[in-house]
Amino acid sequence: MNSFGRIFRVSIFGESHGAGAGIVIDGCPPGIPVTDDDFEKDLARRRSGADGTTPRKESDIPEVISGFFNGRTTGAPVAIIFRNSDTRSSDYSKFRAMPRPGHADFTSNLKYKGYNDMRGSGHFSGRITVGLVAAGVIAKKIIKDTDISAELVEAGGSRDIKKAVSEAASDNDSVGGIIECRIRNMTQGLGEPFFDSFESVLAHIIFAVPGVRGLEFGSGFKAASMRGSEHNDNFISFNGKTETNNHAGINGGITNGNEIFFRLAMKPTSSIAKTQITFNMEKKEMGELKAEGRHDTSFALRVPPVIEAAAAIAAADLFLINRIYQDIQ
Amino acid sequence: MNSFGRIFRVSIFGESHGAGAGIVIDGCPPGIPVTDDDFEKDLARRRSGADGTTPRKESDIPEVISGFFNGRTTGAPVAIIFRNSDTRSSDYSKFRAMPRPGHADFTSNLKYKGYNDMRGSGHFSGRITVGLVAAGVIAKKIIKDTDISAELVEAGGSRDIKKAVSEAASDNDSVGGIIECRIRNMTQGLGEPFFDSFESVLAHIIFAVPGVRGLEFGSGFKAASMRGSEHNDNFISFNGKTETNNHAGINGGITNGNEIFFRLAMKPTSSIAKTQITFNMEKKEMGELKAEGRHDTSFALRVPPVIEAAAAIAAADLFLINRIYQDIQ
Amino acid sequence: MNSFGRIFRVSIFGESHGAGAGIVIDGCPPGIPVTDDDFEKDLARRRSGADGTTPRKESDIPEVISGFFNGRTTGAPVAIIFRNSDTRSSDYSKFRAMPRPGHADFTSNLKYKGYNDMRGSGHFSGRITVGLVAAGVIAKKIIKDTDISAELVEAGGSRDIKKAVSEAASDNDSVGGIIECRIRNMTQGLGEPFFDSFESVLAHIIFAVPGVRGLEFGSGFKAASMRGSEHNDNFISFNGKTETNNHAGINGGITNGNEIFFRLAMKPTSSIAKTQITFNMEKKEMGELKAEGRHDTSFALRVPPVIEAAAAIAAADLFLINRIYQDIQ
Amino acid sequence: MNSFGRIFRVSIFGESHGAGAGIVIDGCPPGIPVTDDDFEKDLARRRSGADGTTPRKESDIPEVISGFFNGRTTGAPVAIIFRNSDTRSSDYSKFRAMPRPGHADFTSNLKYKGYNDMRGSGHFSGRITVGLVAAGVIAKKIIKDTDISAELVEAGGSRDIKKAVSEAASDNDSVGGIIECRIRNMTQGLGEPFFDSFESVLAHIIFAVPGVRGLEFGSGFKAASMRGSEHNDNFISFNGKTETNNHAGINGGITNGNEIFFRLAMKPTSSIAKTQITFNMEKKEMGELKAEGRHDTSFALRVPPVIEAAAAIAAADLFLINRIYQDIQ
Repeated sequence: MNSFGRIFRVSIFGESHGAGAGIVIDGCPPGIPVTDDDFEKDLARRRSGADGTTPRKESDIPEVISGFFNGRTTGAPVAIIFRNSDTRSSDYSKFRAMPRPGHADFTSNLKYKGYNDMRGSGHFSGRITVGLVAAGVIAKKIIKDTDISAELVEAGGSRDIKKAVSEAASDNDSVGGIIECRIRNMTQGLGEPFFDSFESVLAHIIFAVPGVRGLEFGSGFKAASMRGSEHNDNFISFNGKTETNNHAGINGGITNGNEIFFRLAMKPTSSIAKTQITFNMEKKEMGELKAEGRHDTSFALRVPPVIEAAAAIAAADLFLINRIYQDIQ
Repeated sequence: MNSFGRIFRVSIFGESHGAGAGIVIDGCPPGIPVTDDDFEKDLARRRSGADGTTPRKESDIPEVISGFFNGRTTGAPVAIIFRNSDTRSSDYSKFRAMPRPGHADFTSNLKYKGYNDMRGSGHFSGRITVGLVAAGVIAKKIIKDTDISAELVEAGGSRDIKKAVSEAASDNDSVGGIIECRIRNMTQGLGEPFFDSFESVLAHIIFAVPGVRGLEFGSGFKAASMRGSEHNDNFISFNGKTETNNHAGINGGITNGNEIFFRLAMKPTSSIAKTQITFNMEKKEMGELKAEGRHDTSFALRVPPVIEAAAAIAAADLFLINRIYQDIQ
Repeated sequence: MNSFGRIFRVSIFGESHGAGAGIVIDGCPPGIPVTDDDFEKDLARRRSGADGTTPRKESDIPEVISGFFNGRTTGAPVAIIFRNSDTRSSDYSKFRAMPRPGHADFTSNLKYKGYNDMRGSGHFSGRITVGLVAAGVIAKKIIKDTDISAELVEAGGSRDIKKAVSEAASDNDSVGGIIECRIRNMTQGLGEPFFDSFESVLAHIIFAVPGVRGLEFGSGFKAASMRGSEHNDNFISFNGKTETNNHAGINGGITNGNEIFFRLAMKPTSSIAKTQITFNMEKKEMGELKAEGRHDTSFALRVPPVIEAAAAIAAADLFLINRIYQDIQ
Repeated sequence: MNSFGRIFRVSIFGESHGAGAGIVIDGCPPGIPVTDDDFEKDLARRRSGADGTTPRKESDIPEVISGFFNGRTTGAPVAIIFRNSDTRSSDYSKFRAMPRPGHADFTSNLKYKGYNDMRGSGHFSGRITVGLVAAGVIAKKIIKDTDISAELVEAGGSRDIKKAVSEAASDNDSVGGIIECRIRNMTQGLGEPFFDSFESVLAHIIFAVPGVRGLEFGSGFKAASMRGSEHNDNFISFNGKTETNNHAGINGGITNGNEIFFRLAMKPTSSIAKTQITFNMEKKEMGELKAEGRHDTSFALRVPPVIEAAAAIAAADLFLINRIYQDIQ
């Protein structure tokens, strides 16, 4: 539920306005060197600060509790904590009565019978992806010859992302976006039929990232209108290189060595400064809601390093699992 | 790897041209009545026979080995087998030398070091989804008040599916399609943060179905160009009913009771009668390939019941898991 | 629940008097050669026939449904079925009213709300260990340099096992026994702290075998009365060989290369021909029970190959998991 | 590996002389009230201080990072950390060359290729059971009508535990012991055939506790010399109460409502002040070893609350899993 992976297994925890957020990583091979700079590089990209991101400032210093010795992983579980510092919990409990549209307020309150921590959306906040990024830093070291790179390529339907975000901000509104991710030089043979195809495992973790609405690999939705003769990627070399790459480096759920490419849709931030009309569960009538708190105009701006981390975690797990096929018989 | 689910757990097995295919279902509550007709209804929809489907005919009689007594589940694992009968294994081994473009030939041969059964694509064949459909029949009974319905709404970019398929067939080619699935009357509160959001679990099993290239929930890729004020679904009643349904019945990864809606892209069948130019791994040069064997012009035609089954399996598991939140404190 | 293992993962199914019993094995590396003789060797040892075993005769022919091609594993899931042939279902339903003492009748009926198949104890019968033995045959091939050997060393407190069993039989009674198992030449380094210590994983599967009441490793219960200076096993060579072996080849939950040794207690068969006084749940009064059906005087006689299989399955899984620590940094 | 449980799932981490130790608990139902006193009650029993325990003093203040709000669980993962304060890391690295007999030095060094943290035995220290005890406090609240009670009943073969420990201490030696645990008023129907029998799940976590050498349920090893007519527990009431309790409240792996009783053997502490002769891996010759550091004369003294916690964690998981059988058909 809050853990993912079979061998390289991450367990996430934390809340937006509680003590902090963090992650435990099990199945991490020993001897992997990770520096503070390694963490900071990815954490900085996720951090707020740019135009269109929340004014909340978190320093995101990783506090490593276990699993490291002399700068390298030991093979024991790695536990990393990030303290929350810049929290301002105005009255979030009102969202039990009047759940914000598009938010987890209604469903989390219902599922957890009112015991959930709603401050800053609690466990449902994007805040907890900070732990995912930390685990991704280590995962990237496991698949060390592989390069994973995600970027926001569109916001509000426009390639001029800066403008789309600033316009939405000045309208007290928010805006969604498209993220593209490329994985280069991925080991061949990763992915497990039937259920743990490379796409399945990746999709599982990608759709766990708050706000993802769609995911496509390679030709994606275009494939639906293509002919087989056009969509098939002809092999052109002994090592599996293909002429085209509609299959995004994956055949039958297993990596073929070509570039893996996927694209995903992020919804616009649900919390907006604009007044909304929604149902008041206590008064049992429609009412006006103004979502206070500090929010990203487009959290999609901060998601690319989270997607990279998610992809790295999924790939590292499949990479380690794939070793079982070596040198048995 | 070949199993899926935490409580309602299915383990799949089988090959296209081997003895058969099947599934074992663990965590199935006792007392669920399932008839032969229940199985046949869904199996018939997956079966070939319609225009554009393979001439291979399998009767798909479910052979129930265990877990049933007097027509009801017992609580012990359910094992179901489907015998293969109409197999014609022409020389598939040649695909080790000359892997079919778009197919699992290259990657499966590489991953399993040449020991995999390549006849009819072996374990990578759509054949093994027959077991998934059988498990789906039982899963649907667990979430018995819920209605799941998938259909092919487009092929080759056209709503005239019949025509698109017949044109592709006459060109010795294949064609992809779009499938839409609606889940009505789903129990509220299903889905587990962080990693097992309703979308994550569903995406995991959906992307395991051979040939899926993209998946979007509700507003999907359109969400990326929307504003928050437009995308947010305002609540209009005490029980969580919303005015619009861009979130497809899911907030924060948890079902809110509104209709769940998702859309997916199926690629065109990789095996086509048309001659293709690809790499010959033995001769180490490009060569001509003609994929023999019997194939669907558009396997997307047969996939809707498989998608329904996949969705039912995922939902049944989350439904059973959700019981842990009842009546503790 | 009915599956075990993280990588080499077995899923068991079947009933005593239903169609049959079997097992699905996932995570099995490709290319492992297994012959009919390999199966028969272990299955024959588990089969009835000797004095003190049930008169029920099953030929135990393994029907391999999937996962094999040309006599070797393919890397896809292996499914094996054993048909039941010699079943005589007298009226077992009476045991719902009058559950046999020591048996699963009361608890299974309660847990499964009366829907369980009680014929021959259904899924709770020792019959289903036939699948475990089949999986063990393959597991032994994975840890191929290792030798696992279990034997019954005591019955009814006596080393003269034959006599103890025959005396119990002539008294219409049953008798328990002690089984010892030795694992020689086990790879060093197997076992995962904290929860998946070698002992933990082994104990998990050993206690799944019906009738096991106690398990001890090496010095076992004697360790409780020993001093550390006496119990510690001094190393005497570079490769970890120890002078004594109180730790049974395991330190800190990880194999050290010395012989692994464990001992377990099997209870006497619960079903006895002797009349017993127990509670009649329908009449709500004490009553007489005579357990009909055919039973082993001491099923412990047939358990050694089951224990070997269980140990091999656990060891094969830990063996494959241990590969994740190779050659990363 | 470092996690346990299917629904109520704990993930453990930490080292003896690192920053600390802790645990993450997933699948914890919301609304469970837990006070500081609840934690302290069990933690105090595990803490050193009594005669025969290590002079190292840790205050064991639980630092709750997440999953609690207003004194109750929220349904989100609970993360708890215990800081290490009283650490004195003398040169533990020498144990790589000269591994302590009976200790994890040799195997952990080998498995983790020398990257493991050996200070105070690192992740292999009994220190990390502090997290287990914390998780047990919450688990006990889930199975709240059940009483679990473990105690040390023998040390060094004697019921005069105090004397046995003090004699061993004055000999610079250590001593083992026997722990008995009783679980009263356990819900009927817990335990999952085949692999997750109540005994299997319990044995898995019990054997993860460092130093456990043997485990028996009810009649245990005595069962091996008993007759069925003597060993069978006759039912004497409608609700499953039995006359005797050789089966320790478990039939067919499922709880029957009678008292659960198990007994386990703890080995003597491996680290002793006495000089030992063992192999020097660097010098490649036998040599003298004196284990410095602070150690328990009998760590068995501190283990009973750990066993209670382990039993509660296993039982809570099976309790939650058992809910899947309610009210389906």
